[in-house]
Amino acid sequence: MIVTMSTNATQAQISAVVEEIEHQSLTAHLIRGTERTVIVIVGQGKLESQDAVRGLPGVQNLTPITHPYKLASRQVHPQDSQVQVGDVQFGGPDIVLIGGPCSVESRKQLIETAKAIRDAGGQMLRGGAFKPRSSPYSFQGMGEAGLELLAEAREATGLPIVTEVMAPEQIPLIMRYADMFQIGARNMQNYNLLHAVGESQFPVLLKRGMSATIDELLMSAEYILSHGNRRVVLCERGIRTYETTTRNTTDINAVPVLKTLTHLPVMLDPSHSTGQRNYVIPISRAAIAAGADGLIIEVHPDPDHALSDGGQSLRFDQFAELVQQTRKLAAAVGRS
Amino acid sequence: MIVTMSTNATQAQISAVVEEIEHQSLTAHLIRGTERTVIVIVGQGKLESQDAVRGLPGVQNLTPITHPYKLASRQVHPQDSQVQVGDVQFGGPDIVLIGGPCSVESRKQLIETAKAIRDAGGQMLRGGAFKPRSSPYSFQGMGEAGLELLAEAREATGLPIVTEVMAPEQIPLIMRYADMFQIGARNMQNYNLLHAVGESQFPVLLKRGMSATIDELLMSAEYILSHGNRRVVLCERGIRTYETTTRNTTDINAVPVLKTLTHLPVMLDPSHSTGQRNYVIPISRAAIAAGADGLIIEVHPDPDHALSDGGQSLRFDQFAELVQQTRKLAAAVGRS
Amino acid sequence: MIVTMSTNATQAQISAVVEEIEHQSLTAHLIRGTERTVIVIVGQGKLESQDAVRGLPGVQNLTPITHPYKLASRQVHPQDSQVQVGDVQFGGPDIVLIGGPCSVESRKQLIETAKAIRDAGGQMLRGGAFKPRSSPYSFQGMGEAGLELLAEAREATGLPIVTEVMAPEQIPLIMRYADMFQIGARNMQNYNLLHAVGESQFPVLLKRGMSATIDELLMSAEYILSHGNRRVVLCERGIRTYETTTRNTTDINAVPVLKTLTHLPVMLDPSHSTGQRNYVIPISRAAIAAGADGLIIEVHPDPDHALSDGGQSLRFDQFAELVQQTRKLAAAVGRS
Amino acid sequence: MIVTMSTNATQAQISAVVEEIEHQSLTAHLIRGTERTVIVIVGQGKLESQDAVRGLPGVQNLTPITHPYKLASRQVHPQDSQVQVGDVQFGGPDIVLIGGPCSVESRKQLIETAKAIRDAGGQMLRGGAFKPRSSPYSFQGMGEAGLELLAEAREATGLPIVTEVMAPEQIPLIMRYADMFQIGARNMQNYNLLHAVGESQFPVLLKRGMSATIDELLMSAEYILSHGNRRVVLCERGIRTYETTTRNTTDINAVPVLKTLTHLPVMLDPSHSTGQRNYVIPISRAAIAAGADGLIIEVHPDPDHALSDGGQSLRFDQFAELVQQTRKLAAAVGRS
Repeated sequence: MIVTMSTNATQAQISAVVEEIEHQSLTAHLIRGTERTVIVIVGQGKLESQDAVRGLPGVQNLTPITHPYKLASRQVHPQDSQVQVGDVQFGGPDIVLIGGPCSVESRKQLIETAKAIRDAGGQMLRGGAFKPRSSPYSFQGMGEAGLELLAEAREATGLPIVTEVMAPEQIPLIMRYADMFQIGARNMQNYNLLHAVGESQFPVLLKRGMSATIDELLMSAEYILSHGNRRVVLCERGIRTYETTTRNTTDINAVPVLKTLTHLPVMLDPSHSTGQRNYVIPISRAAIAAGADGLIIEVHPDPDHALSDGGQSLRFDQFAELVQQTRKLAAAVGRS
Repeated sequence: MIVTMSTNATQAQISAVVEEIEHQSLTAHLIRGTERTVIVIVGQGKLESQDAVRGLPGVQNLTPITHPYKLASRQVHPQDSQVQVGDVQFGGPDIVLIGGPCSVESRKQLIETAKAIRDAGGQMLRGGAFKPRSSPYSFQGMGEAGLELLAEAREATGLPIVTEVMAPEQIPLIMRYADMFQIGARNMQNYNLLHAVGESQFPVLLKRGMSATIDELLMSAEYILSHGNRRVVLCERGIRTYETTTRNTTDINAVPVLKTLTHLPVMLDPSHSTGQRNYVIPISRAAIAAGADGLIIEVHPDPDHALSDGGQSLRFDQFAELVQQTRKLAAAVGRS
Repeated sequence: MIVTMSTNATQAQISAVVEEIEHQSLTAHLIRGTERTVIVIVGQGKLESQDAVRGLPGVQNLTPITHPYKLASRQVHPQDSQVQVGDVQFGGPDIVLIGGPCSVESRKQLIETAKAIRDAGGQMLRGGAFKPRSSPYSFQGMGEAGLELLAEAREATGLPIVTEVMAPEQIPLIMRYADMFQIGARNMQNYNLLHAVGESQFPVLLKRGMSATIDELLMSAEYILSHGNRRVVLCERGIRTYETTTRNTTDINAVPVLKTLTHLPVMLDPSHSTGQRNYVIPISRAAIAAGADGLIIEVHPDPDHALSDGGQSLRFDQFAELVQQTRKLAAAVGRS
Repeated sequence: MIVTMSTNATQAQISAVVEEIEHQSLTAHLIRGTERTVIVIVGQGKLESQDAVRGLPGVQNLTPITHPYKLASRQVHPQDSQVQVGDVQFGGPDIVLIGGPCSVESRKQLIETAKAIRDAGGQMLRGGAFKPRSSPYSFQGMGEAGLELLAEAREATGLPIVTEVMAPEQIPLIMRYADMFQIGARNMQNYNLLHAVGESQFPVLLKRGMSATIDELLMSAEYILSHGNRRVVLCERGIRTYETTTRNTTDINAVPVLKTLTHLPVMLDPSHSTGQRNYVIPISRAAIAAGADGLIIEVHPDPDHALSDGGQSLRFDQFAELVQQTRKLAAAVGRS
């Protein structure tokens, strides 16, 4: 349920509404717009007595929310949300380009890559220190040593850092070194992790699960939002289908669908959604054309010798070419 | 196997190679380039004696073909193929925009739509006279009366006509009225139809099956090409996945994958691949950005009262908006 | 709509109802039960005047049909249907076991296999004379020569023959030699073929399309039934999913779902649904346990040298083993 | 790599081999058979010097492992593994039937259900105290209070308890009350959880992810096994496909495929794999027929008022019917 307050509602009137909602054992989330405040009611039950709320001074009207996700819904927040991470703004007029290696492997690899990303025009650095790998015998990431290198790369280039968090206990450690969490596809429905990341109030890049529906992605975002953490950025990364020519199937439909259903920024990861280096640039163009707010791209100084995901990583010159091409596309759709 | 002739090979030398291939119970397809002729060998068996061919005068070399499709492969025809239908050229620098109703319903509906398509800048008219419907009790199309109206619409607007063929026996009838066959998703592996359409030598828009792989689409194209009909245009129309928010999942990866594997033109049908009107324009932009050669779009004067596919049909003003937007995108990717 | 006649309704009363339905431009299908006659109304429109029918003498009541398929629905025909082909009865107490090669390859191969099938306890022979192959360069079947061999095998063993029909023009030819059509997965939505097979009044084994929903399978059955051909047997043959360990995913759920939704007999094809010889027997057992009315199994004297589908074909001794095991299972579920 | 020791190898010889393996920075897992000991070598790298191992006394031969999973492979452990939980043995001659509610809701509900399970012939009780729910606003389980009730139900009936673990920090708590962990589909690739459960040495029922391949399931099992925890039981619970008539598609193929690839016991969950009460019994029969070692079934005293998964829960009488029917099936496949 959404309680829309009248434009001249006072803070006391808003507090009285919140109090009544909590009295009915539900939770009130305030969304303060430029003109008016909206109060979103969430919780396991329903508002028993709607009249008790409707009758309060300053309340303009009550509207039911039609989707199972509430805070993520564009219905409660019609304007696009912006998520700020350092100087980078997701969901604003600028397209955000994040680049970097799948895994942090060494100082040389990471610093070189970070500089190449920055010089080409990328705004943010990605790199995995904790790696979810399907085999227990594969390289599992450098751990804290990798985080230190990421922080050093930020020092060297000014680029903010996004890196994957796999478990609640890694949260304080990662917050010390990085600027944004990534929740990977395999953990999209790891609810204990979503809960903990929600409580951290730290920005999150939430990737869609390999076979998650769009609704499930929004419900997972809702887990984070319901803990008061509004800095959630969604990421389409390809879904699992019967087609095996590409590693995954880029669900390009998800871009306009998400932009319709939610106010949250929407990124696309063409490295995973195609799994092959030579399709990354055309799919990046398509993502921008479809309305995505940015791209996250795997880049490696020497893809053929990468410890993971080499086949889908761009070389530096290819990343620079991608930046050039997406700029033209951004202009054609009125972005920058 | 591909036989590459030397640049100064004579016609007699080419004929001798063909003769030797046929002598070995295989079929030779000639591809005459601007500089040299290439001979593609196809058939159920293998070339028993490669030396007998390799030793012939004018033969430069023999190269094996790595894919199960031969004539459709970019390996045998590295340049993009163009398919000409009236004044419309598929696979050239121009993006081809086809518009029209799902089903031909009446003279008024069709002529109005055709004029709107032409005035907005569309180059070709689509419309179904024979309709494959999952229920035997649904409207099955107007049949020949529908074809007559399509011919009349061409008369009135100059737009060439593409319409679906469902069975070999419809071929002569449709050829009398239309300019291009469409083979629908459900018939992509109707081999008797592919065979008959191959023999017709008439241009074909071949849609990908609902759960066909990219390789299967190219094998179906090969059925048509192997009968000497080179005027084949492919069309991605969305695949069936677990995601139900949209009618199908647009496999945008298929666009650059097909452009890499084959020389044939590649269209995209965002009406079917999304199934919802409000996603058609962003996915059209994405298709052009990904490298598609054109779009086929459902347009109806009054979508809410369409006899089929109303929910995914654009109104006239929306089609005009789509033309405007795709023009900007075409320019951004160096097309027109 | 279903018109249930009272138990003592006369033929004249029934005829009057049919007349009224046809007067309203719809079609009436009579289903004569042991106790009463039921009239199913189908067609593109709705019954304009229900009262005109309800008021007729002998009419007990009118019930709407809740599914898009009508004649296929168990609602209109609560008892299991039986389909008789020679001595073989589908949908009765006996489990029907069909065996035979993917393709008819030679007299020796076919006659040997037919005898092995019969000796092991199989009731019917399968074998393809017209083969839908994804490549135009693969073996396409022996055609009429294959049909002649099938008829000869029937002569030699007494087993009735089921063989694939790919196009309407093959219908009269196949009817001359075989006892039952098979419509393959790729042609499940070839509506012109369904229509023609419906008109033939010849028994049909209708296989589910590779990514057809259960509803779509029933709608395709409805195409055949609506032409008055009641001898339709359905066949689950595995669906296309992301899992690649097996060729297809056996949708075992489809067996009880179909038995609930329709009165038509339901077969399962474990050769295609697994694609691997060593999984055919356990999945055959599962099919019988789930309630299937029979199995269709690929059997070959020398699977490693089969012209098609060798990897999923059983040897003779394995087919005999399968018969033994399914007999035990049949007994455990009260079948024979 | 598998090191097979000769039948009369001494403990000292075995220790020397282990030492050499660890000297090469790899890990040795001992599998002690009745006749001989086998040493499985796992780790991120390869055995640098095979000869150093091959030359040691007591070594019979070295065999490479062909799958990415090692300890889970039937190659290293050709006999079926048994996993003992209280009196219940998974993977032995007896079919194991686990029943219980989706969520623990109250003492009355749970104790009644546990008694009904036991009286009908079930061997183990399931019930969720921590519930992974796609909405943050849905009932999330009773937590520790639910675990207390589960322990009380065991007290009352003697049935061992299996319950879901969602996060490493819940492990000690759950071990205090229950007898076996369940790892749910959404956490199948939560590697930190797999690692922690591996270290716990507590029995685990590992469910296949909603769109996990069979290989990925086995790799997840390998995570647990590689920590020395051999008590892993696998569970097929349906996969996500395009078919929407049922909640999931039971991948019945997975049963014989898993029994071929691994020595671990294989259960099936027909409640989730169908999502509809009336298909649970036929799919249970199919699972046993296909070779599953047992079933896990949702049972509720009043399914229509269950807090979760009511539509797929059996009533008590239906569970009793299921036990009767599966007994007949078990006998037909030589189980009890």
